[in-house]
Amino acid sequence: MSDLRHDPIQKRWVIIAPERGQRPLEFLPPAPLEREAFCPFCPLHEATTPPEIYAVRGETFPNQPGWSVRVVPNKFPALRIEGDLDRTGVGTYDRMAGIGAHEVIIESPAHDTAFPDHPVEHIERILQTYQARVRDLSGDQRFRYVLLFKNHGAAAGASLSHPHSQLIATPITPRTVAIELDSMRTHYLAKERCLVCDILREELERGDRVVAAGDDFVTLTPYASRFPFELFIAPRRHAHDLLGCEGPLLRSLARTLKDAFARLRAALNDPPYNFVFHIAPSIALQPHRPGYWQTLPWDFHWHIEIIPRLTRMAGFEWGTGFYINPTSPEEAAKVLREAEI
Amino acid sequence: MSDLRHDPIQKRWVIIAPERGQRPLEFLPPAPLEREAFCPFCPLHEATTPPEIYAVRGETFPNQPGWSVRVVPNKFPALRIEGDLDRTGVGTYDRMAGIGAHEVIIESPAHDTAFPDHPVEHIERILQTYQARVRDLSGDQRFRYVLLFKNHGAAAGASLSHPHSQLIATPITPRTVAIELDSMRTHYLAKERCLVCDILREELERGDRVVAAGDDFVTLTPYASRFPFELFIAPRRHAHDLLGCEGPLLRSLARTLKDAFARLRAALNDPPYNFVFHIAPSIALQPHRPGYWQTLPWDFHWHIEIIPRLTRMAGFEWGTGFYINPTSPEEAAKVLREAEI
Repeated sequence: MSDLRHDPIQKRWVIIAPERGQRPLEFLPPAPLEREAFCPFCPLHEATTPPEIYAVRGETFPNQPGWSVRVVPNKFPALRIEGDLDRTGVGTYDRMAGIGAHEVIIESPAHDTAFPDHPVEHIERILQTYQARVRDLSGDQRFRYVLLFKNHGAAAGASLSHPHSQLIATPITPRTVAIELDSMRTHYLAKERCLVCDILREELERGDRVVAAGDDFVTLTPYASRFPFELFIAPRRHAHDLLGCEGPLLRSLARTLKDAFARLRAALNDPPYNFVFHIAPSIALQPHRPGYWQTLPWDFHWHIEIIPRLTRMAGFEWGTGFYINPTSPEEAAKVLREAEI
Repeated sequence: MSDLRHDPIQKRWVIIAPERGQRPLEFLPPAPLEREAFCPFCPLHEATTPPEIYAVRGETFPNQPGWSVRVVPNKFPALRIEGDLDRTGVGTYDRMAGIGAHEVIIESPAHDTAFPDHPVEHIERILQTYQARVRDLSGDQRFRYVLLFKNHGAAAGASLSHPHSQLIATPITPRTVAIELDSMRTHYLAKERCLVCDILREELERGDRVVAAGDDFVTLTPYASRFPFELFIAPRRHAHDLLGCEGPLLRSLARTLKDAFARLRAALNDPPYNFVFHIAPSIALQPHRPGYWQTLPWDFHWHIEIIPRLTRMAGFEWGTGFYINPTSPEEAAKVLREAEI
């Protein structure tokens, strides 16, 4: 039974999920992922995962082969879907029950197809699956945020090699998102302009941190990149919400992602990476909530962050939240622009 | 020439230090540290480091053997000591020159002596060295913060196996520290009590997250621990400043650290770890600064954080600032209390 606990000093929520726990000496440094003897995500093995929540499939039965994207609950969830939040104070501290959703998006039946090798239409299906799950979970009044992310490679936290993303719906807004909401609102209130729109305008003018500039999306290495080859992808036209990204715009996003991952692979020899969507909190989908119009984060500009896990210098950052990046974003952008894909 | 750049979305400063840079394909996952053929930190090799800044030594010459603790500039510093801050706006962004100090504290002449194997008196000398360096650097008006930390083991970011800590003086307050300053001040203004004093009182009453409780210091696993076996060490008596920790109190701190590291080693088979001091910003040492009395962080309670680097689940956290901890702090405290040291 997991618990959400609030750290009053660092003002952040942490999931304490001991059912996932290992005995102390079972913690090991990540080893490269080997091809597993048995892959639970491959077709014909559908019965070895919990029953599917969602799938893109033809006229075939649930939990049978025939799907092209499949969503199942995480077998070892950090949060569980049933129950009340049970918000309580414990002395000086605050906690709530570890309620939420923890799902796995199996991106393709093919065990060995990397993200940039999918056809654009298939990446679109993966993105539509993300959207369908965000839409569904955002209707749940208990949840404040749906976090969509992907860990690729053991060093990035992946424990299975079959291509998959994950989703965690939480009853709190992660601190990183809360800070972004605040900085975007502050900028808007002061200037009546969107912070990310301002950044995109400036970057497109300068050009030296632009990796790819399509009609709809821009791929950048951020001015204050924390990590070598960190990427930031945002829509050119202001939008707080991934769900409005449909039709030709969604196809454009699929093309942008295919391009970005192909460049990372070509330039950096298939690095491990984390891929995180920064979308507005799900309260935006709940107009029946009190204060809906006031809290609607119309000034938030959604974006995607890709962090290759290359650097050895990680020690310092964990304890301090302070980063040293040995590769300038201008050099990283140049390497990625010139990558042969 | 490094640069400090501000991320306007995440409101955090990043050091872009390309002179430390590697070519893209030179980034490697950490390998276990081997005994180097040549150790620049061992006695008789003093000439291979930059000239020493400080040393605890008998009547011997600088940069010669005879020292017991020795401080040298980092050979590949992330920040450089000379120059003006040169704060400038660059379009939407803010930057300043990468000015600061980056020093290495060589903890002992002995290449193979681990922290818990030092006599208490020697740990005291290391702590006094930290204090001397913090005192010296805090007098520099350009700096806002002195960050003291230690990376032990390759997985924690160490690149040399000879025991050493590091220090970085920065012209900004790291975001983590800024958040702590804010939460402690808010708590104090609301309740006229210190947040950490409140936490210590409660933890000592409950007892199940207490690893060791001495007369002067308490070692805890925090209520909302982000990582398995994370430790929090704080003085029982309120103090914002490490520099006031002298005499019997400093000896007590040395004993507390020896005990904590011995427990981690015994329970977890010498894990890699990061060890970070959370002290008040150095402005506290500069009474000539305008606004000194207003900004003096008397409500800050200094403490130490130790983070063993055990978990494989690191991917998720980097992108989101949201943590999942598979080991409850109560279980971790029990394991560490019962460790045979």
